[in-house]
Amino acid sequence: MIYLDNAATTFPKPEVVYEAMLNQMKSFGANPGRSGHKLAIEAGRCIFSAREIVGRLFNINNPMQIIFTANATESLNLAIKGVLNSGDHVITTSIEHNSVMRPIKTLEAIGVEHTAVQCNEKGELNPQDIETAIKPNTKLIVMTHASNVIGTLLPIEEVGRLAKEKEILFLVDAAQTAGTYDIDVVKMNIDLLALPGHKGLYGPQGTGILYIREGLSVRHFKEGGTGSKSEELIQPDIVPDRYESGTPNTPGIAGLLKGIEFILETGIENIRRHEEELTQYFIDGLKELPEVTIYGTHDAKKQASVVSINIGDEDSSEIGYILDKVFDIAVRPGLHCSPMTHKTIGSFEQGTVRFSIGYFNTKADLDKALDAIRSIVQQIYYE
Amino acid sequence: MIYLDNAATTFPKPEVVYEAMLNQMKSFGANPGRSGHKLAIEAGRCIFSAREIVGRLFNINNPMQIIFTANATESLNLAIKGVLNSGDHVITTSIEHNSVMRPIKTLEAIGVEHTAVQCNEKGELNPQDIETAIKPNTKLIVMTHASNVIGTLLPIEEVGRLAKEKEILFLVDAAQTAGTYDIDVVKMNIDLLALPGHKGLYGPQGTGILYIREGLSVRHFKEGGTGSKSEELIQPDIVPDRYESGTPNTPGIAGLLKGIEFILETGIENIRRHEEELTQYFIDGLKELPEVTIYGTHDAKKQASVVSINIGDEDSSEIGYILDKVFDIAVRPGLHCSPMTHKTIGSFEQGTVRFSIGYFNTKADLDKALDAIRSIVQQIYYE
Repeated sequence: MIYLDNAATTFPKPEVVYEAMLNQMKSFGANPGRSGHKLAIEAGRCIFSAREIVGRLFNINNPMQIIFTANATESLNLAIKGVLNSGDHVITTSIEHNSVMRPIKTLEAIGVEHTAVQCNEKGELNPQDIETAIKPNTKLIVMTHASNVIGTLLPIEEVGRLAKEKEILFLVDAAQTAGTYDIDVVKMNIDLLALPGHKGLYGPQGTGILYIREGLSVRHFKEGGTGSKSEELIQPDIVPDRYESGTPNTPGIAGLLKGIEFILETGIENIRRHEEELTQYFIDGLKELPEVTIYGTHDAKKQASVVSINIGDEDSSEIGYILDKVFDIAVRPGLHCSPMTHKTIGSFEQGTVRFSIGYFNTKADLDKALDAIRSIVQQIYYE
Repeated sequence: MIYLDNAATTFPKPEVVYEAMLNQMKSFGANPGRSGHKLAIEAGRCIFSAREIVGRLFNINNPMQIIFTANATESLNLAIKGVLNSGDHVITTSIEHNSVMRPIKTLEAIGVEHTAVQCNEKGELNPQDIETAIKPNTKLIVMTHASNVIGTLLPIEEVGRLAKEKEILFLVDAAQTAGTYDIDVVKMNIDLLALPGHKGLYGPQGTGILYIREGLSVRHFKEGGTGSKSEELIQPDIVPDRYESGTPNTPGIAGLLKGIEFILETGIENIRRHEEELTQYFIDGLKELPEVTIYGTHDAKKQASVVSINIGDEDSSEIGYILDKVFDIAVRPGLHCSPMTHKTIGSFEQGTVRFSIGYFNTKADLDKALDAIRSIVQQIYYE
């Protein structure tokens, strides 16, 4: 199987990730931050080390501002619902994922106003359009760093500057870029950063992260045992405990720690360069096929390693099915939980066939993918 | 290390649990329910099989009514906040965990009324007292199946009958009993059942379950990508998707599946018998030490395998520390995220030293624990 579905979850993970999870479960599989015995303390230390290494990767000074969640969706829900109140206005873009749009739709019902700024058909955003959308009651700008459908990178640094200048909170959804692109919460004026653990950070599924800027108060939306201030019936105020009720995913976080170590050892720029090269190689190969529509910027410097295509007006699911069954190539067809993006790029009815490239892919993988597409084109048009 | 902290998390897990997680991550580490290729389908099947086996254990007819969560705390938050509205009344007991009490405290601020029915100093509850607490606006009864501090079992079957008769929703927190005690949602009239995956069900940390009775509408509290109805900006209505936004903890759920298989193969009654024997053996040994206060019922038939003690008026944390450092025995001292229980049993200032026994413990482990306690008593009182 050639796996080109890394935007859904990276696969495989570095071997050290599996080993770390197994080691945590077998050697110190206790409940961290609770009981105080050796194994519990070792589990707690592991989680703290994971906070530290996340901090290192994103220039977050205080590791206690790093909240572990179940996935990026939970991080986004916590951030969005934690700062918006009835009467507030929130700005998003027309290429956001449902994990941003659906919580906001829920809030609209209680009186939160919402503007989705239109991107062009390549998914590109003009920061000026964000500025134009700002109203006196704008409390928050939520923006993906890169489209999960076509990879287009959004200008988070410019928008971060604007948000700071206008004193508006800035939440970045880095689901498709964390671990591959430089993200610096200080330099980019990011107040809230939502991350999946299991994509570019190479942790296992079941892990997510929310960074909350120090001093920013976000409403908790789960309460329970935190192992701290056990005597109180109200949720403790201290971070990260305030946001982390119940037993954490300790094996998952142990794996995530090693995933990020792998990134730091490999070098984020080496990972990016490899993925950029493969992405451009794939796009250039696709360009030779006039029957294939390639969405997005066609420029690997302007997009994450996600390439969406269609073959004529063939159903994207059908193409995905053939790639899987006949060619043993794993991609994701359809709407990718992001209908607004498909409306923006003009593929809402058809969906697209999404190829997403990871660090462990090779040119040979993409040659096989190109061969498969060529063969499908041949069969549809010329046989 | 002798591990007697199984009420925090069971350790170790059956070997098959580790193997299943590794196998999922290495062989079919894709995102389930999303892309439709072979690996994604296999991951989706694994999650569906896990729903089925959970259903088998708790007599849940429709596996789609089983929601996977991050932990029991999330399950409780989802259930409690998903059914209670301003003006509703909720009944709990005086031995609930903070994972029940803290969400309710949050709801009290928006006008939910709350009565905590008093248990006696052994943690026992008279179902008649629940009936007395019922008011015309009582919407929900939330009750733990067994105290996480002293193990005392609560009469969930009687209360379930009462709840059904009075048309009140019944939520059971089975954090300390699932996998060891027979729980039948039909027979016991349980509308909502909250479970941790990583305790008696032998799954890894990072897994939890909420069962929602068919036909019962619970508000979702996270929205996002569900892999279903991607074209819609509002959360889909279908279960379990409605409650499971974002990428699930697939390796965790794969492990949980094998944990429950282990229970079914071993026989839940064999697990319970073993734990009951050890618990009674430990209690009987403790009874020979007049300096030791044993909380709870002193009867393993009436309590889960959790035994809380104190030695005179010694600080519980100090005793826990000595057990760990000197005797290499892992227990949990303090308040166990359940201050109300400690008020109920009269140990709020001192906390207790909690020994919690698991299926993998042996008589030899408890002999060593008894020896250690004897030695500490000797040192405090007679040296």
